[in-house]
Amino acid sequence: MKTLVIVAHPEFSNSSTQHFLKEAVDPYDDVTFHVLKTPLNVAHEKELVQSHDRLIFQFPFYWYSAPAILKAWIDDVLTDQSPNKELGLVVTIAVREAAYQAGGEIGFTVSELLRPYEALAKAKKWHFLPSLPIFKFAYMSDNEQLRLAIRYQRYCLQSADRRLLDRENWAIQELGRLVTETTDNHNRRRKALLESLLLELEDKKDERLELEALLQPFREEDLYGG
Amino acid sequence: MKTLVIVAHPEFSNSSTQHFLKEAVDPYDDVTFHVLKTPLNVAHEKELVQSHDRLIFQFPFYWYSAPAILKAWIDDVLTDQSPNKELGLVVTIAVREAAYQAGGEIGFTVSELLRPYEALAKAKKWHFLPSLPIFKFAYMSDNEQLRLAIRYQRYCLQSADRRLLDRENWAIQELGRLVTETTDNHNRRRKALLESLLLELEDKKDERLELEALLQPFREEDLYGG
Repeated sequence: MKTLVIVAHPEFSNSSTQHFLKEAVDPYDDVTFHVLKTPLNVAHEKELVQSHDRLIFQFPFYWYSAPAILKAWIDDVLTDQSPNKELGLVVTIAVREAAYQAGGEIGFTVSELLRPYEALAKAKKWHFLPSLPIFKFAYMSDNEQLRLAIRYQRYCLQSADRRLLDRENWAIQELGRLVTETTDNHNRRRKALLESLLLELEDKKDERLELEALLQPFREEDLYGG
Repeated sequence: MKTLVIVAHPEFSNSSTQHFLKEAVDPYDDVTFHVLKTPLNVAHEKELVQSHDRLIFQFPFYWYSAPAILKAWIDDVLTDQSPNKELGLVVTIAVREAAYQAGGEIGFTVSELLRPYEALAKAKKWHFLPSLPIFKFAYMSDNEQLRLAIRYQRYCLQSADRRLLDRENWAIQELGRLVTETTDNHNRRRKALLESLLLELEDKKDERLELEALLQPFREEDLYGG
């Protein structure tokens, strides 16, 4: 599966969030991290769409939707049939999550505000993935940022129908890789964090597998659904 | 009250709907019909916002939101405080109304898809007016088009708290003016339609006033609310 991350950010070079996300998927050949620039080369953009299976619109929430350049891209590039795509949204949001609810400061959920993209996917008969909103990145602890990096990699790379076990193995494998790669002395703190996350995850997996073995006799079907 | 109609349409000059709407408010000095063009002169746009009380975003529904130029306008122009505005939306839609419902072809209501604009108004503490969606203008009869013209004029000109009686008088007055102004021989059909609409409306008003007089003794408060 090939994934095209379509980044709409008028100040990409100043965005630490965007650089963090870019770095998280840099090692993966199956992910094309594509920052939109004006003027759009429509023919080239169409080729990019054709040659990828999953499209991810990635943008900061500006007045509850994407910056204008993404709308220009949608209107100008998505004019042809392109069957069998998946569409995901990675939205960076500077406001705390609790503001996005009925009675909250914003008054609407992020899902409600993203309906136009959901309707686009529906019209195109594309599979619309659960969105990945990123709230207040600047206030995240190192630990939270690492968890986000793993989650984002999965969002870009993992097929939509993967089961819990696959997700678990994926995370363990990726964390192991990151631990191995983190050798620089400046990253000692990061390495320690990665190692503790990895141990935590392996513990959780053991615990879960024990529980699963205990439950197995009582269940006909696979515990994790079909 | 001064109204700024902010029109976002990449092919304005080819749009018969937009020309129809422009013509409907041409006689009114209190309405500024403003077609967006790139590049935006942000300072001038900000002045326009400051000097009007009601802002109306008017656009064709492209993939369930406005064309990119309106998003650029929102992101670039609405950077300052501008208290006490009203925000209305006039959205032209090429698909039939029934498609916009749960289980319908689009699967979402127009109101759901317009949430980002509602959230914008909420964040700005502006009064968000009920939207005016215009479905399948090209298929409207002359009669329907005339009703739309009156409705659109009210949408641009009438204050949001006007009562039924005011709306009635407004429509009668405007229809009367249109009948008087329609002298060209080419418009005989239009004039006949206007006259029949006017008679219908005056009949309805008489009927309503009779009913109101009958009901008055039974009611303490004004029939049309405070």
